[in-house]
Amino acid sequence: MENEFELKRYKITDEFWSSRQQLITKTVIPYQEKVLNDEIPGIEKSHALANFRIAAGMEKGEFYGMVFQDSDVAKWLEAVAYSLAISPDIALEKRADEIIDIIAKSQQEDGYLDTYFIIKEPGQKFQNLQECHELYCAGHMMEASVAYYEATGKDTFLKVMQKVADCIDRNIGPEEGKIHGIPGHEEIEIGLLRMYRVCVNPRYLELAAYFINQRGINPEYFAQETEKRGWIQWLDSPHDAQYNQSYAPVRQQKEGKGHSVRAMYLYTGMADYAKISGDESLADACETLWSNVTGKQMYLTGSIGQAAQWEGFTQDYDLPNDTVYAETCAAIGLMMFAHRMLKIHIDRKYADVMERVLYNGILPGMQLDGKRFFYVNPLEVNPGVSGKLPGYKHVLTERPEWFPCACCPPNVARLIASLGKYVCDEADGTIYFHLFMGGTAEFEVATVRVESDYPWKGHICFILKQCRKNLFSLAIRIPSYVKEFTVYVNGKCMPTEEHLKKDGYLYLSREWENEDNITFDFEMPVRRTYCNPLVRANENCVALQRGPLVYCFEEVDNGKNIQELRIPENAEFYIKQITDGTLADIYAIDFDGIRKVAAQEELYFETKLEEKMVPMRAVPYFTWGNRGENQMRVWMPET
Amino acid sequence: MENEFELKRYKITDEFWSSRQQLITKTVIPYQEKVLNDEIPGIEKSHALANFRIAAGMEKGEFYGMVFQDSDVAKWLEAVAYSLAISPDIALEKRADEIIDIIAKSQQEDGYLDTYFIIKEPGQKFQNLQECHELYCAGHMMEASVAYYEATGKDTFLKVMQKVADCIDRNIGPEEGKIHGIPGHEEIEIGLLRMYRVCVNPRYLELAAYFINQRGINPEYFAQETEKRGWIQWLDSPHDAQYNQSYAPVRQQKEGKGHSVRAMYLYTGMADYAKISGDESLADACETLWSNVTGKQMYLTGSIGQAAQWEGFTQDYDLPNDTVYAETCAAIGLMMFAHRMLKIHIDRKYADVMERVLYNGILPGMQLDGKRFFYVNPLEVNPGVSGKLPGYKHVLTERPEWFPCACCPPNVARLIASLGKYVCDEADGTIYFHLFMGGTAEFEVATVRVESDYPWKGHICFILKQCRKNLFSLAIRIPSYVKEFTVYVNGKCMPTEEHLKKDGYLYLSREWENEDNITFDFEMPVRRTYCNPLVRANENCVALQRGPLVYCFEEVDNGKNIQELRIPENAEFYIKQITDGTLADIYAIDFDGIRKVAAQEELYFETKLEEKMVPMRAVPYFTWGNRGENQMRVWMPET
Repeated sequence: MENEFELKRYKITDEFWSSRQQLITKTVIPYQEKVLNDEIPGIEKSHALANFRIAAGMEKGEFYGMVFQDSDVAKWLEAVAYSLAISPDIALEKRADEIIDIIAKSQQEDGYLDTYFIIKEPGQKFQNLQECHELYCAGHMMEASVAYYEATGKDTFLKVMQKVADCIDRNIGPEEGKIHGIPGHEEIEIGLLRMYRVCVNPRYLELAAYFINQRGINPEYFAQETEKRGWIQWLDSPHDAQYNQSYAPVRQQKEGKGHSVRAMYLYTGMADYAKISGDESLADACETLWSNVTGKQMYLTGSIGQAAQWEGFTQDYDLPNDTVYAETCAAIGLMMFAHRMLKIHIDRKYADVMERVLYNGILPGMQLDGKRFFYVNPLEVNPGVSGKLPGYKHVLTERPEWFPCACCPPNVARLIASLGKYVCDEADGTIYFHLFMGGTAEFEVATVRVESDYPWKGHICFILKQCRKNLFSLAIRIPSYVKEFTVYVNGKCMPTEEHLKKDGYLYLSREWENEDNITFDFEMPVRRTYCNPLVRANENCVALQRGPLVYCFEEVDNGKNIQELRIPENAEFYIKQITDGTLADIYAIDFDGIRKVAAQEELYFETKLEEKMVPMRAVPYFTWGNRGENQMRVWMPET
Repeated sequence: MENEFELKRYKITDEFWSSRQQLITKTVIPYQEKVLNDEIPGIEKSHALANFRIAAGMEKGEFYGMVFQDSDVAKWLEAVAYSLAISPDIALEKRADEIIDIIAKSQQEDGYLDTYFIIKEPGQKFQNLQECHELYCAGHMMEASVAYYEATGKDTFLKVMQKVADCIDRNIGPEEGKIHGIPGHEEIEIGLLRMYRVCVNPRYLELAAYFINQRGINPEYFAQETEKRGWIQWLDSPHDAQYNQSYAPVRQQKEGKGHSVRAMYLYTGMADYAKISGDESLADACETLWSNVTGKQMYLTGSIGQAAQWEGFTQDYDLPNDTVYAETCAAIGLMMFAHRMLKIHIDRKYADVMERVLYNGILPGMQLDGKRFFYVNPLEVNPGVSGKLPGYKHVLTERPEWFPCACCPPNVARLIASLGKYVCDEADGTIYFHLFMGGTAEFEVATVRVESDYPWKGHICFILKQCRKNLFSLAIRIPSYVKEFTVYVNGKCMPTEEHLKKDGYLYLSREWENEDNITFDFEMPVRRTYCNPLVRANENCVALQRGPLVYCFEEVDNGKNIQELRIPENAEFYIKQITDGTLADIYAIDFDGIRKVAAQEELYFETKLEEKMVPMRAVPYFTWGNRGENQMRVWMPET
């Protein structure tokens, strides 16, 4: 069994990401704590912590919120754990400990823990696995308890969650007398596998395996469950087995289907279990699903989930930009799935997607000031239509402060706070760098300092600080967008053809010395990106990318009616670092573009549109919507 | 007061339209009669005639169908009337008489007539004008009774409807003690004004005026009506005053809003009343609404209504092609509105829209064989998405046989059967030709035979058969798409600059003789049509038109994935008459086009798409969907 790369071993220090981690620590976590405590006036009431206090008998009151309200507390605690790992904060840790004490008090004698059922429906536990999210909440709580244990060494929360896991294990499973159920919203698979790594309790591994392998064996399971209990929680159809990926056994599933967050959490659990167990048929199933999702249903931004109606997948090559769902949580799920796939097999295709979705699918979910969040991440908005007309109502043009279903904000917080886990790996005497972020990493073989101005510059410097061994390999991902690169070792250009390149990683193997430095250098030109013509929405269009960043066009930079703009086929692009304002330090792309305007007001006419040369500017997609409501689009016609 | 141009005075004989009128007579009317009688197995039950028999006490049973089911019978009878006018049919007339007798028997002592309330809710008449369509059904019945009287000279039906009108007049109106109500679905305004023209009863004119002028005076009227009665019929919000155009007094309404059929019937009534009364403020309001609807919210096909959710308008320049509603009935409504505007002021802008919507908004509603109908008329369909994915479910790729809400098929039948009314006019010694259809027209001043191969050829020949006066004017609309034309009188080219051209009509005034013939000749090149760039959906695209016809591209002619096709900027177009198959006799447009294909299967890549020259074919939009399910689009990228 292999441990996850521990968070504490990579400390991010570069300006780009450490400032965002600081935002999480200084702004997002305290803000969300207030939200969970109902201390922010004028936004949707959370009541999530009150639910725990009521369940603990510490105060009187009724349950309030979504049936999965507990998971907001879990995700927040997980974010707190990562935050404490990267920047200790005694006061915050004390407050988190107090909340954990409340959680412990709210746990029932038999280990059961879910405030909705404890307060509101104590007689109906585990009867509605389809809709009631007990296993989903437990999964998030398990993740949080493991993170908190790893960050602080304290095991109160972990012990609570062991009792929860044991309680679930007593009630649900393949054995006679138990409920042969599966969760309606996957997540517990991930939680159990993380618990297993820390607690080394094979029951957790077996229970995770049961939930994965049992899924879809009986596509009518939820319909039967519904009939048996005779009540429903909300309007999810028990017959829609695609929605929650129970339509077929997981090894027979070939395409991303249904609710995309559910799908990503399932696939992440599957990949994780495949890695731990060495189950090749499961790894193959993951690969098939990976290919479909990332090869036929993924937006250029790495976002997934085309349909608002079921917050999920539709079909291959259906990728509308302006009615998209592209939930931030689904993007986070895809990053987790990619990360687990990379653990099975080091191949840049996984890390490429991880990078793509991090910079372009997850980061845009948060306002630059860390105070507002997107749930839906469109690739095109048109104020007056977006957020307003039917089919577009879910597509907001500006980030709101909080949501009644507040899954995304704390999920972004925990992801960014835990970023260090995704950057690198160490296995069999090789150090792997998947992502480029300045910081310091402690590996078994060495301590490495990384210096970089990524994502703005293609110049990454690795400095070996303490070699505990000398002969080892440094494996650096060559992003698939990099056409040519140069490697310098201690300032000397190194002929890279002498070194192994495998699955998109460059393996540098030699006897290393302290203070050796390796520089990975590549150009970062603006890349015109075209889309498969099977995607109707991007017909005739081009998108601009630079480095790992997808760019977009906003009205504030380009004037009204950006649909009149065209990117000339021969345009020369100029990179410009913005020096002030909301987007200070961001690199924009400037060029001479074309605006096609009508000479007349009529709807239809027979004269061609007039062409005017106009200055055009693209900015990184993750910065959109930070300068007031305006038009925005990623894909732009080329002429 | 001016009479409507009577149907009988224009007999259409050309191949294009007379064959379609024959279809209505021989196929559509008998088929719909069977539907109304529930004699077609396997389709939605109508029960509409059974409802009348039950209300008449002739058989036992319950009311079945929509609350406005009566209107299906009304529209069918109106179509029958027009059909009898153009091709007498003793057996059909006898059956219609029998149905009229049933209707007469179902009428109550006080004149009340609406089978839903007679059978089902006798105590709740006139309490729910918002949802229950009593006035809407009455309006259609009035139209039918007038048409039947004009076609056959029989007044049984007309007398029934006079009693209905009197009953409504006793119950609703401005006077004290009456309900100060307005219809939730406009139509009675049109019906009353037609009754007024035939019966010359000023009460009908006043009641129509009341319904028009009272509308929107109290935008809360329907909310108050709902509160007063305490029950609802379905889910229409009583607070949505835009939906039924009651949000503001009609003279203050500036934009097409709400349900588009409702809007068109209101505007038609308004224009009709403005003409009769000479009310200039009302005529101005009509002009403002006309400009908005046709100038900012109309599809190239003349269709209107962008949103399925309320079957109606959204906002200026929002014209999505593939999620469009574009109901056939709304197109018919626009044609009626245009026709009434033309009566106020002879200007080709009205006749141009009338022609556009007839050929491209209404005609496509019917299968070429007259057996199937579209309710929704998209400008783009993509099988697998259209009719299937959320937001696209209403957009069918093939015409179904019948609908549970069967408003469109009988509406198409009555429109096509009554086409003669729209072709020409006579006023103040001038004969006006608005539309070009071969046939014979009896005017006061002369009998004119028109010969034409329109819409395929720009060669219209007018032959004066019997001049009852000699000095009169012949005014011919010069379609706005005609850039140059030649007029021949008795074979001699005539310098047209010597003749008055006013508001798009050419006035030929002289002493005419029997057998004089006037030829109006113009080229019909393929016209590349561009769209205002404020319309996001048509960005970068061009549409092909020829004569009055909008063309489209179908997969069956152009191969799979028509979104890969481009129209070259310099393409030469060839007109080709199809000689066999479903589209025999249709003129297609052939040219060398470009197909842009991807060399790879990936979603995204940095190489430009490969261009291949391919033959491309466009066919008239009204013929689409006649050769099996396939992709179709009107707007095509130009390169």
